[in-house]
Amino acid sequence: MSDLNVAVVGATGLVGSEFLRILEHWTVPIKSLSLYASDRSAGTPLQFQGSDLRVEETSDDSFKGIDIALFSAGADVSERFAPVAVRSGAVVVDNSSAFRMDPDAPLVIPEVNPNDLEKHQGIIANPNCSTIQMLVALYPLHQINPIKRIIVSTYQAVAGTGTAAVDELNQQIRQVMEGEKTSPKVYPHQIAFNVIPFVDDFLDNGYTVEEWKMVSETRKILHLPDMPVSATCVRVPVYLSHSEAVNVELSNPMSPEEAREVLSRAPGVEVVDDPANQMYPLALTATGRDEVFVGRVREGLSHPNSLAMWIVADDLRKGAALNAVQIAEEILRRNLLLSR
Amino acid sequence: MSDLNVAVVGATGLVGSEFLRILEHWTVPIKSLSLYASDRSAGTPLQFQGSDLRVEETSDDSFKGIDIALFSAGADVSERFAPVAVRSGAVVVDNSSAFRMDPDAPLVIPEVNPNDLEKHQGIIANPNCSTIQMLVALYPLHQINPIKRIIVSTYQAVAGTGTAAVDELNQQIRQVMEGEKTSPKVYPHQIAFNVIPFVDDFLDNGYTVEEWKMVSETRKILHLPDMPVSATCVRVPVYLSHSEAVNVELSNPMSPEEAREVLSRAPGVEVVDDPANQMYPLALTATGRDEVFVGRVREGLSHPNSLAMWIVADDLRKGAALNAVQIAEEILRRNLLLSR
Repeated sequence: MSDLNVAVVGATGLVGSEFLRILEHWTVPIKSLSLYASDRSAGTPLQFQGSDLRVEETSDDSFKGIDIALFSAGADVSERFAPVAVRSGAVVVDNSSAFRMDPDAPLVIPEVNPNDLEKHQGIIANPNCSTIQMLVALYPLHQINPIKRIIVSTYQAVAGTGTAAVDELNQQIRQVMEGEKTSPKVYPHQIAFNVIPFVDDFLDNGYTVEEWKMVSETRKILHLPDMPVSATCVRVPVYLSHSEAVNVELSNPMSPEEAREVLSRAPGVEVVDDPANQMYPLALTATGRDEVFVGRVREGLSHPNSLAMWIVADDLRKGAALNAVQIAEEILRRNLLLSR
Repeated sequence: MSDLNVAVVGATGLVGSEFLRILEHWTVPIKSLSLYASDRSAGTPLQFQGSDLRVEETSDDSFKGIDIALFSAGADVSERFAPVAVRSGAVVVDNSSAFRMDPDAPLVIPEVNPNDLEKHQGIIANPNCSTIQMLVALYPLHQINPIKRIIVSTYQAVAGTGTAAVDELNQQIRQVMEGEKTSPKVYPHQIAFNVIPFVDDFLDNGYTVEEWKMVSETRKILHLPDMPVSATCVRVPVYLSHSEAVNVELSNPMSPEEAREVLSRAPGVEVVDDPANQMYPLALTATGRDEVFVGRVREGLSHPNSLAMWIVADDLRKGAALNAVQIAEEILRRNLLLSR
């Protein structure tokens, strides 16, 4: 495999920074890395593998000669520039929601549905962070005992919203500690010392877009268009890493012991489940790590075939940048570039 | 009804303080209020209805002439002194877990199973905070459309653990903001900027005691010993008020509109459900309030007869002190004192 020309669109955001950290040590040799962002961030100097790079404004000319373009600059930017990149010969891995439900765009978690990449037409969608970590943990069980129903409640970190949300949490924490009033801007209510059952916009059916993503993306990734999934997505005052309480009903009984056994051999999963020693996945300890952590595995009690578990992952890594880079690796492994 | 002699055991704790705040404005005239705690807190001066009171150490002589004794000093103290109080002629409303599963002790939420009080033998148990708010919200639905299954994830405030936990959260917040290391004592892990899927001790089946309380107390209160209930109880960095994501399966379909209609007429419930205006229950706004707040009512998606909802209440008020005082009121209304 000859050296790659890679572009990152949205290089100055939280996921963009995570892209750079992961690509810095990527096993695939990078010939050139082009960094793009909005005109506001153009000119920002960034270091990569010992070189000084400068962020440029994304334009129609940005993708000439690019093999792989990693997008994480929001749906509007992806809708505008992903088709441009594809026409220029780049494969796009898009972290926004723009193309996730597009039937022409595979929606891929490499540990779950890598074969969907074979039919790509230039754009591959990276699933929503909450969906990725849930399915990395559930798919190994699904393979041997098909899932009938999923009920999930999330505990989502503010980093998923971006740097402004991290700043807002910090500011509100200081204000509350000093007895001052807070004035929420990024979130509709105070996030410090509170939890907010609202992530993304509301739909007419009472669900939020984030909750609906967990439903529709799960169905698309598992190729099960009728899979019953119920999600409640909640923002919590945590900087990084999402936690999820999942109750899953399988086709047949499965003991917690067997589930732990299966998960301990599953790719991308680390089982942390030792209650006697107070060991279970935590947002704090998952942060900066690549794995999806699973613990608190126990009988579901709600149904004889059900299991309950606690799933935690770094939402900027496996939930975003890492999964996208792993998609790029799989594209290379399968010789699915447009440019070669 | 002649004036009452009331005792509060555990008067200096968070729930004890809440007892005093509620009794201060109680519609029932109090003739005398006796305040008890451990020897460490004996001598603490407290104000009540314009009088200076002094906390005394709980002893075998504490309950002479007492009509109602409100206990919130932990299971050990209740086990030791509740029978003493009953022998002295007092009705005990016990906020600890000591007698909750005792078949001789009614476990009562006045909005749900007040008739269970009729058979009391001196000790009435106050349910766990997480159970109370869930059942206040679910029981009105259950009455017209029996519940088949409950799956709940909690977001529990630190006040439920006591003052030491509130202090620990504050200390850790300051330490993190100043870049210092935290050293958890009350909780097994850092609670600041983290969520911990562990409340109370672990059982052999992988559930925590708190989760198991939600199972067994729900079954006892609803008189449905086989009701499938699955709970995940999680501590979050919130000072006060517990939030719960509940997915409930009913016997027959019920629209979200009908559920909201039923709940809007239910005792002790306030529906806050206006997504277009970002109105839903929040821990911050429930704090200091008596009601159980319900919102985000929507189709459950996991089953045709299921509903999803978000339930929030002040865990020290309706989750503890207020429910106990309401039990006392019901005891009086039904002439169920031992002393008269």
